[in-house]
Amino acid sequence: MIEQFAAIVGPANVLTGDAAAPWARDWTGNYEGLPAAVVRPASTAEVSQVLAAANAAEVPVVPVSGNTGLNGGAFARDAVVVSLDRMRAIREVRASERVAVVEAGVILSELHDAAEAEGLIFPMTFGARGSARIGGILSTNAGGSNVLRYGNTRQLVLGIEAVLADGRVLDLMTALHKDNTGPALGQLMIGAEGMLGVITGAVLKLAPQPRAYATAMVAVRDLDTALTLLNRLQDASGGAVEAFEYMPANYIARHLEVIAGARPPFDAAHETNILVELGATAARDATPGPDGTVPLAALLEETLAAAFEEGLVADAVVAQTEAQRREMWARRESAAEITFHRRPFVDTDIAVPLHAVQAFLDGIRARLAALDPDADDFVVAHLGDGNIHYTVYPGRDDPALMRAIREAIDDTAVGLGGTFSAEHGIGLSKLGAMARHKNPVALDALRAIKAALDPNDILNRGKTIPR
Amino acid sequence: MIEQFAAIVGPANVLTGDAAAPWARDWTGNYEGLPAAVVRPASTAEVSQVLAAANAAEVPVVPVSGNTGLNGGAFARDAVVVSLDRMRAIREVRASERVAVVEAGVILSELHDAAEAEGLIFPMTFGARGSARIGGILSTNAGGSNVLRYGNTRQLVLGIEAVLADGRVLDLMTALHKDNTGPALGQLMIGAEGMLGVITGAVLKLAPQPRAYATAMVAVRDLDTALTLLNRLQDASGGAVEAFEYMPANYIARHLEVIAGARPPFDAAHETNILVELGATAARDATPGPDGTVPLAALLEETLAAAFEEGLVADAVVAQTEAQRREMWARRESAAEITFHRRPFVDTDIAVPLHAVQAFLDGIRARLAALDPDADDFVVAHLGDGNIHYTVYPGRDDPALMRAIREAIDDTAVGLGGTFSAEHGIGLSKLGAMARHKNPVALDALRAIKAALDPNDILNRGKTIPR
Repeated sequence: MIEQFAAIVGPANVLTGDAAAPWARDWTGNYEGLPAAVVRPASTAEVSQVLAAANAAEVPVVPVSGNTGLNGGAFARDAVVVSLDRMRAIREVRASERVAVVEAGVILSELHDAAEAEGLIFPMTFGARGSARIGGILSTNAGGSNVLRYGNTRQLVLGIEAVLADGRVLDLMTALHKDNTGPALGQLMIGAEGMLGVITGAVLKLAPQPRAYATAMVAVRDLDTALTLLNRLQDASGGAVEAFEYMPANYIARHLEVIAGARPPFDAAHETNILVELGATAARDATPGPDGTVPLAALLEETLAAAFEEGLVADAVVAQTEAQRREMWARRESAAEITFHRRPFVDTDIAVPLHAVQAFLDGIRARLAALDPDADDFVVAHLGDGNIHYTVYPGRDDPALMRAIREAIDDTAVGLGGTFSAEHGIGLSKLGAMARHKNPVALDALRAIKAALDPNDILNRGKTIPR
Repeated sequence: MIEQFAAIVGPANVLTGDAAAPWARDWTGNYEGLPAAVVRPASTAEVSQVLAAANAAEVPVVPVSGNTGLNGGAFARDAVVVSLDRMRAIREVRASERVAVVEAGVILSELHDAAEAEGLIFPMTFGARGSARIGGILSTNAGGSNVLRYGNTRQLVLGIEAVLADGRVLDLMTALHKDNTGPALGQLMIGAEGMLGVITGAVLKLAPQPRAYATAMVAVRDLDTALTLLNRLQDASGGAVEAFEYMPANYIARHLEVIAGARPPFDAAHETNILVELGATAARDATPGPDGTVPLAALLEETLAAAFEEGLVADAVVAQTEAQRREMWARRESAAEITFHRRPFVDTDIAVPLHAVQAFLDGIRARLAALDPDADDFVVAHLGDGNIHYTVYPGRDDPALMRAIREAIDDTAVGLGGTFSAEHGIGLSKLGAMARHKNPVALDALRAIKAALDPNDILNRGKTIPR
């Protein structure tokens, strides 16, 4: 098998033993296991040949791009990793059509740079953008910090190229916004975690780069007040809020403890801290007036001032420079580092309807107090999406307790009309939640589709769909 | 069988013979054939029982909601029509969450009214909105006149309820914007034309009702100039263009001939006429200034005036009243009536990249002149989407010629990076195009998924996927 792979991708691109070690561990540290081999194809044609060979031999394959997933989706003990990391060509940025044609191994920040060089943005962004790659981003339907304005990954994809389990190439690389030629197979590959096919390329939507941002840290009275503020800003700006991120007091405190050089957002500590950012896409929103004021920034300041007068806002700092803006974002984007600094942990990415965020926190805290009085929790949220990264540090390292905590979190979210996974996907860590909460007919339909497209079950076996 | 259905839905809701005649013909008149029976369930549970019975007997079923499709997707000669027309409950409009929970038989205009009562809109709209129903709109992934701003149907759906061929209910009725629990099965049902399941309900996104519209008819120099104008309006308004519709001179002329009481948009005839509409979602865009001018309307007028000065625009009329706006829209929305007034015709809904619209017209006209010198063509386009309804009236009623014309249109579009179906779907009329142009691996994958979910092939047999 190794020789067969070597004949396809070259011996230097088939790694085993110590050379495969970088693929043996995910960065949460929760999943470890040495792959049988890592195969690094350089093209779709090579991916096709590798999969055809693996399929003929019924050898399990785990497609991996950036290996930044948080649920064990890239765990590959004794399997063959097909790494997309050599397929990192940005084939085209067509500025006038606002699309980028990319290979699956492109690193997100590289795509950001290429788009920005044309006055455009690829809107998807999150903390791991310097190492996450397009294939994984699409395969997990990743979310991030400005889904509120631009949608999640699914909404940003026009075309897909994927290799099916038997090596056949599914070429759906359209750049059209309207293409209605049968059910959307490309959409089926998004969020499938490499289980239905290996995504090798995509045509992605770009958006005009906002001409100006208005960014602030705001301390509000409580979460309900935060939502009032969000609605006011959306009404005033016509939906220009790009991000609305919640960091409670203990997030700020942990940030100061863990991150060297970190500074507090306000002189005093506040319980409910929001990072808000508006993006000016209309020319007149970004064009400074006679007094030098940018209209969108003025709108933000006026809205905050009015809320301050009413006692809804306790303090607010509007970024006056790009450096100040970056410091605000750096605080938020340290979330994973801060969260995973303490172990053991149960991390989640649940979502609930916006109005139910406080109810979720109240509900899970009551259940947690009963389950484990020594547990601490830790919260950071894409509040504008109702998407909460709710993490628990249990009082003892006990797998049964940790499973019970995870189930309590999921149950509380689902009980409020929410979901046990908003943006990280399923992988291995949420198979139990899938079994408990996903519609059983949907699970059967997924099993039937999986069997139809990958009859030998070689692609990411055992992930995503509970048996 | 009939008795079995009658036991489920009641004898009054199983129609045969003359009573089934209203389902025997689509409104293009291209597809005629009496169904064996029409079964009208009142609930998802009844749909489930009807499908279970049909599946057990391997009886073919054609799901139908509004029967306004243009490709024969609801053609049901000798099959059992499952009509969703009794399932017309708008279960909920949750204004604060901006979602509507609806059954598949809800008529589009009824949903529009229910949303507007809450200060919201369901953005999808098109000429047949008074009879098209949600089930068909989702099953065809329908497009329309403001896809440019709000996306096509696919982008407006959060949750889906569908009954699988064997009667099991796939309940994916989430209202969350971020729900990442495995591949998106709901998305697979959208655009599947009832072939993978019968959509019975949906959770749909609503949007804030624009506080004001700025609407104009504009005569521009040519199509390239039209695109320049579109880009200027998008830049100035930050993407507030809701519709950008192209009607050439002969569209205007035919409208005056066919529609009683129709009036010309301008004193003189112009070759390239555009209906443009901007929607003000931000408060300050819609708030009249001291002189009574609405900022968004002022922006439109200023942009048009500048283009007029440059000679790009020959004439323009901005709607000053809602009645004037409605007259502009009525002209555009008569398209189907005007088009199908003359027979025989070959109608299409191709799309090409925006910059290739003129190239498409030049290309197909050259080919058409060679195929049939006596043919006339007729054009109306969602120009902002590159989506052209290109219709040909052949010089003679000759099926072989009409097929050749259709293939020439499709080939020309696909050759320019376009598609043979932008918004109407496949049904029966585009099976040939699917076979010629769809990626063969995609066709095989669709066949495998169809066989997996509907092993007896009872659902809309023979449509969408060529054999």
